[in-house]
Amino acid sequence: MTDNESPLLALVSQRARGRVPHDFWHDVPKVANPHPKPIQLIGGLPNYQFFPIKGADVQLRDAPFYNTTADTFRSVDVSSDSARIDIKAALQYSEVGGLEPLLEQIRGFVKRVVRPKLQSWEVQCTLGGADGIAKTFDVLVDPGDTVLFEEFTFVPVLGSLVERGGIAVPVRLSAVTEFDYGNELETLLENWTTLKPGLPKPKALYTIPNGHNPLGLAQTIEHKKRVIALAEKHNFAIIEDEPYSYLNFDKYGDPATSYSLSNDEFIASLNPSYTTLDTSGRVVRVETFSKIFAPGMRLGFVVADKALMPFYSGSAAVLTRSPNGYSQMFLNNTILQLGGVEGWIHWITKVRNEYLQRKNVYVGALLSSPAYTKGYLSPIDPSCGMFVSVVINVDKHPRFSGANVHELMELFYVKAVEAGVLVVLGRNMSVDKQLSEPRSNFVRTAISFVDTHDVLREAVNRLSEAAVRLFEDE
Amino acid sequence: MTDNESPLLALVSQRARGRVPHDFWHDVPKVANPHPKPIQLIGGLPNYQFFPIKGADVQLRDAPFYNTTADTFRSVDVSSDSARIDIKAALQYSEVGGLEPLLEQIRGFVKRVVRPKLQSWEVQCTLGGADGIAKTFDVLVDPGDTVLFEEFTFVPVLGSLVERGGIAVPVRLSAVTEFDYGNELETLLENWTTLKPGLPKPKALYTIPNGHNPLGLAQTIEHKKRVIALAEKHNFAIIEDEPYSYLNFDKYGDPATSYSLSNDEFIASLNPSYTTLDTSGRVVRVETFSKIFAPGMRLGFVVADKALMPFYSGSAAVLTRSPNGYSQMFLNNTILQLGGVEGWIHWITKVRNEYLQRKNVYVGALLSSPAYTKGYLSPIDPSCGMFVSVVINVDKHPRFSGANVHELMELFYVKAVEAGVLVVLGRNMSVDKQLSEPRSNFVRTAISFVDTHDVLREAVNRLSEAAVRLFEDE
Repeated sequence: MTDNESPLLALVSQRARGRVPHDFWHDVPKVANPHPKPIQLIGGLPNYQFFPIKGADVQLRDAPFYNTTADTFRSVDVSSDSARIDIKAALQYSEVGGLEPLLEQIRGFVKRVVRPKLQSWEVQCTLGGADGIAKTFDVLVDPGDTVLFEEFTFVPVLGSLVERGGIAVPVRLSAVTEFDYGNELETLLENWTTLKPGLPKPKALYTIPNGHNPLGLAQTIEHKKRVIALAEKHNFAIIEDEPYSYLNFDKYGDPATSYSLSNDEFIASLNPSYTTLDTSGRVVRVETFSKIFAPGMRLGFVVADKALMPFYSGSAAVLTRSPNGYSQMFLNNTILQLGGVEGWIHWITKVRNEYLQRKNVYVGALLSSPAYTKGYLSPIDPSCGMFVSVVINVDKHPRFSGANVHELMELFYVKAVEAGVLVVLGRNMSVDKQLSEPRSNFVRTAISFVDTHDVLREAVNRLSEAAVRLFEDE
Repeated sequence: MTDNESPLLALVSQRARGRVPHDFWHDVPKVANPHPKPIQLIGGLPNYQFFPIKGADVQLRDAPFYNTTADTFRSVDVSSDSARIDIKAALQYSEVGGLEPLLEQIRGFVKRVVRPKLQSWEVQCTLGGADGIAKTFDVLVDPGDTVLFEEFTFVPVLGSLVERGGIAVPVRLSAVTEFDYGNELETLLENWTTLKPGLPKPKALYTIPNGHNPLGLAQTIEHKKRVIALAEKHNFAIIEDEPYSYLNFDKYGDPATSYSLSNDEFIASLNPSYTTLDTSGRVVRVETFSKIFAPGMRLGFVVADKALMPFYSGSAAVLTRSPNGYSQMFLNNTILQLGGVEGWIHWITKVRNEYLQRKNVYVGALLSSPAYTKGYLSPIDPSCGMFVSVVINVDKHPRFSGANVHELMELFYVKAVEAGVLVVLGRNMSVDKQLSEPRSNFVRTAISFVDTHDVLREAVNRLSEAAVRLFEDE
């Protein structure tokens, strides 16, 4: 291993290393006098003129929740503009890592917005955030390997880890109201063999550093620096899952809040990525287009040291094949229509504005609610994302015993369902329910799905009513 | 196991059986007095009005290679027509098995065209044919299990089998010019422990029964009956990969050839699926939209006993998630625009007509070529599909030793590259190159990709020239 080689290369799984391509079309013999215009009879590719679709006009929305149509653009079957993706390319078989025009847009976006410190970063398309995580586990995790998780997390990713035979090790937070686990992580790593006897030291930390799911909080830069130093010392990868960071918030009531940020101001306001701190190439950043464009596209990307890209390609070749062409074409051509990377960023600021308005309406309503006034609940004002978690102050409940957090939270959920509001219990988003029970006295609520701000206000009425009933009905 | 239970249930892999969902949103408590209109704050789903795309007008092609636009249809953000897929549904998170309107179209198509004998069949969407195969291996194959393959096959599927720890066992053909392996299969199965010592009896046969890749041939109904009887006796699954059967051909020069088949005539002309013979539920049929619509859609489906569907869903939940929404929406709405299942079938007949014309042009040119006249090559007139395999009669070569098939075929490929035509060596599509070498004296040529029939004629000139040089240059 040379000084400049990504430390993750040594961590690549045996599975990913051992894959051999089962191609049959790459053995064209080299000849001294090749024909200048060979006829291609190798691939079982249908000519694009077999495709039933010849063109598509897409109507764009001017801004989220604007129902006027701002702009329409056409995608044609054959385009001479190399920045566009045409139907001929989009609907054909294609490279598993994504079509080049889109990759080039993504590179431009990452360079402008994410700004990785490493020189040798590269991007590759995935089938969305969950797929990016699944492929990263596939590339790094052998059976029996351990991966660190924040104790509350987006638990479906555990399924992808289990699929690879990995073992999840949760790291306790100091409190759900502050997203910090530096001490806990250091203690765990420094005393690994004592605390986790029989388990190998971790291959990776999976983190949702900005707009954590479910907590909504962002790690401080100091926390990130500490984590990355621990990763350097203990030689593990940092898998940074970043679906939410662009939905970036000010704190409720911040007088500096602006809904007309310039792109430069927006970028400066973002919580930084671990890639801005990573000089050795041990961070894998996973993004998705699900939150800023749409989930049904099934499209995302990873950013990592380019030395890892062949392993991602190998994973895609056998697990998913290429992302679908419609999504790549319409996304790429939408970005072009919006004016390229700057237009894309501007669209994101519009999405962020609507989420920020929702967040402030919702947190404001919670802070004015009877249940808050009485001390029964407190919102965690989120740093970014689609979720506001609400702490239920069960320690003030007359029947609180110190050991019945779960019982009281289940009772709260019954009251909430009766009041007409459906939420997620914090406990159900923990890696280890027993470990996390003392800190499970919260619910995750999504502010993303309802149609109007009024529905959010009504949801708060119901949450408050449920909390009041929990504390006062007995 | 009751009499009516699919025999495949007992063959499901430990992996597929052992998967547990890592959901966190399903535990809404049942209450005696639920609210009539609960507000949904559970899922992290963006409201559809966050999506940048509000509508799309798709221009259809009247027929393959027609450049006039026949028809345009609109997909809107919110549709009141439950048969349509709107943007609100398409671009949202959705069920891994596909959106219901499309599933309903697929069921109608299968019922009308494929006609499975089993009562309890069901369909589920996949991310294309390769994904359908990969998921089927995932559902059935444990490490160390064996799967039978036709000795020449679409070798990338071997990668999906290896991924699951499966072992491929090739079954020899009597000859590449007739697609029959009944005797060989029976001998192998009846003498398994002697012929394959240490290997478990097969869990499945993977077959491309109609329009075999690379051979282009279809198994006779007698062959299929014999295979299914062997599957019943030896308790294995039949995985029927059917990308090509709808591109259904008459033999070259058949005076009955028609390019204006009614849908009924077309359906009657098709080579039957194994599902038409399967009474117990041991056949899994894998289809793709890649050949009759377009590969970049990444969309296909499986047909199998409905008892298997939860395992496919479990596989999708962890491996791929749902197929992308654009493809589901545009395919479904295209089918509606074409007039439903009957219009879909009619579109397929148009695609088939163009392939049949190409096939006849190409085979006709080969049969008129100098190399054919001199006995150096012979085309295998295919039953269906996108490929014409061409046998090189190396046994007539002056240097043929009986043991140098591969050497002469490599020399042929050098001559072909020099003449300006790129092909696939049959050997590279064998499961076991050594086993299949005596029958590897053919090349696979795709008639699907070139722009015009004239290019096919020129390709034949070059193939003929290469064969003449192979036989006469030394």
